[in-house]
Amino acid sequence: MDQVDYINGQTRVYGIVGDPIAQVRSPEMVTHELQRRGLNAILVPLHVARADFDRVVPHLMQLLNLDGLVMTIPFKSQALNLASTLGPQARAVGALNALARRNDGTWAGEMFDGMGCVQAFARRGLALREKSVLLIGLGGAGGAIAAAVASEQPLRMHIWDLEPQRCQQSAQVIARLSPHTHVHVGPPDLAGVEVLMNASPVGMLDDARLPLAVDTLPPDLVVFDTIVYPQETPLLRLARRSGCQVVTGREMMQGQIARIVDFFIQAQQGSVVPN
Amino acid sequence: MDQVDYINGQTRVYGIVGDPIAQVRSPEMVTHELQRRGLNAILVPLHVARADFDRVVPHLMQLLNLDGLVMTIPFKSQALNLASTLGPQARAVGALNALARRNDGTWAGEMFDGMGCVQAFARRGLALREKSVLLIGLGGAGGAIAAAVASEQPLRMHIWDLEPQRCQQSAQVIARLSPHTHVHVGPPDLAGVEVLMNASPVGMLDDARLPLAVDTLPPDLVVFDTIVYPQETPLLRLARRSGCQVVTGREMMQGQIARIVDFFIQAQQGSVVPN
Repeated sequence: MDQVDYINGQTRVYGIVGDPIAQVRSPEMVTHELQRRGLNAILVPLHVARADFDRVVPHLMQLLNLDGLVMTIPFKSQALNLASTLGPQARAVGALNALARRNDGTWAGEMFDGMGCVQAFARRGLALREKSVLLIGLGGAGGAIAAAVASEQPLRMHIWDLEPQRCQQSAQVIARLSPHTHVHVGPPDLAGVEVLMNASPVGMLDDARLPLAVDTLPPDLVVFDTIVYPQETPLLRLARRSGCQVVTGREMMQGQIARIVDFFIQAQQGSVVPN
Repeated sequence: MDQVDYINGQTRVYGIVGDPIAQVRSPEMVTHELQRRGLNAILVPLHVARADFDRVVPHLMQLLNLDGLVMTIPFKSQALNLASTLGPQARAVGALNALARRNDGTWAGEMFDGMGCVQAFARRGLALREKSVLLIGLGGAGGAIAAAVASEQPLRMHIWDLEPQRCQQSAQVIARLSPHTHVHVGPPDLAGVEVLMNASPVGMLDDARLPLAVDTLPPDLVVFDTIVYPQETPLLRLARRSGCQVVTGREMMQGQIARIVDFFIQAQQGSVVPN
């Protein structure tokens, strides 16, 4: 009989909730990762209007074969209310991007926006512990990266954003998660820096600018850019020319997906106790 | 990047709602048909507990990228409340198995359980109009087939079920849908019959019985069996041996899926006015 082979009545369902939804990449990427782990599971886009979120999403979570949700713009803060327990990143950042049904029926929430970056470094064998990190940009992704990097206990974090309030907030988050890390707030400066991270939008799409004023970079610097389009940003191009090791936004995205799927699977096994 | 190619952020979502859900075939079959029509769409299993139906399903229908639902056991009657307008089959049978979102945001409901049978006959070029039909079994599927066949305006319908109430109810439905059709209720008898339909469970799985007491069948009889497993029931085996033309349960299933996808697509185009 005419049929497809990737979905059936036993398929476990996951969703990504956002408004708008058409631009999300989780359906094709998380589904790939779920199936790579041998699961009969799929992640579908779920377009919820902002005004409907608080009524619709709790009812979605009552579907008996729905095991997890990814949350995207504009719901990452609002979704905190849906979790029975929050992981340390979600608590630090005050937002979450994944909800997993545990085997007791309760829901665990955690924020993986920054952990994808840490995971991408780990996959390259690059430690962040005891390193000196310069992080430029502390918006949604940057704030989550600040928290995730802090959890790796770096020696020093130099952070910068054009909005002073974001700098102050991230400095507090870092101090809470890693009291021994030296936090410095100020315009970008590479003195003593071992890892440079760009989480600002500078260099996105056809923006030819660099996020800091330099002509070359020290070859022992590790350079990371959150930007996915283009894959090779002006910063990363300069870094490769300078002989630096480079970590890309796509690696972060893959790392985040791997961590989210770990979270979904561990919740099912009852081994997620994020409190 | 690692990804699957059959779902993304633009994919339109359909669902099948039932309890239990693991046994349903719509996810693999309707999804195949949606994609065969060139749509970026998928049908996912949605397991709703009986007690949750009235609270959960109306909220599911608020997902902005959900365009249709298939309803299965035990929700086909309960789902009537969810439709703004009902098609003639749903009205006749008092149940529906498909809900389609129209382009004005309202939902149309219709029952396709019997229309798959009519569609399977049509695909073979076999008319039911002005024919003499014997239908055995008037449960869920049989009752819907009685209504769908009646809508084809047969000359005569001889119907039978071990439960007298079902016979009476189907006789009324047929009389309403096709006043000129002669309805006869009584034990199976092939006299004058041109089309024999089995909608009883006799012959299912390893049941070796026939739904009526015969040794052979007239070769000009058309024989249809709703049963899907086995594909070749004892009745259909006898029919082929007797030289009869045969229509199978799988053809009905394919016919039903084609009609449901037509219904979904036409609702989107605003051309479904089932009232």
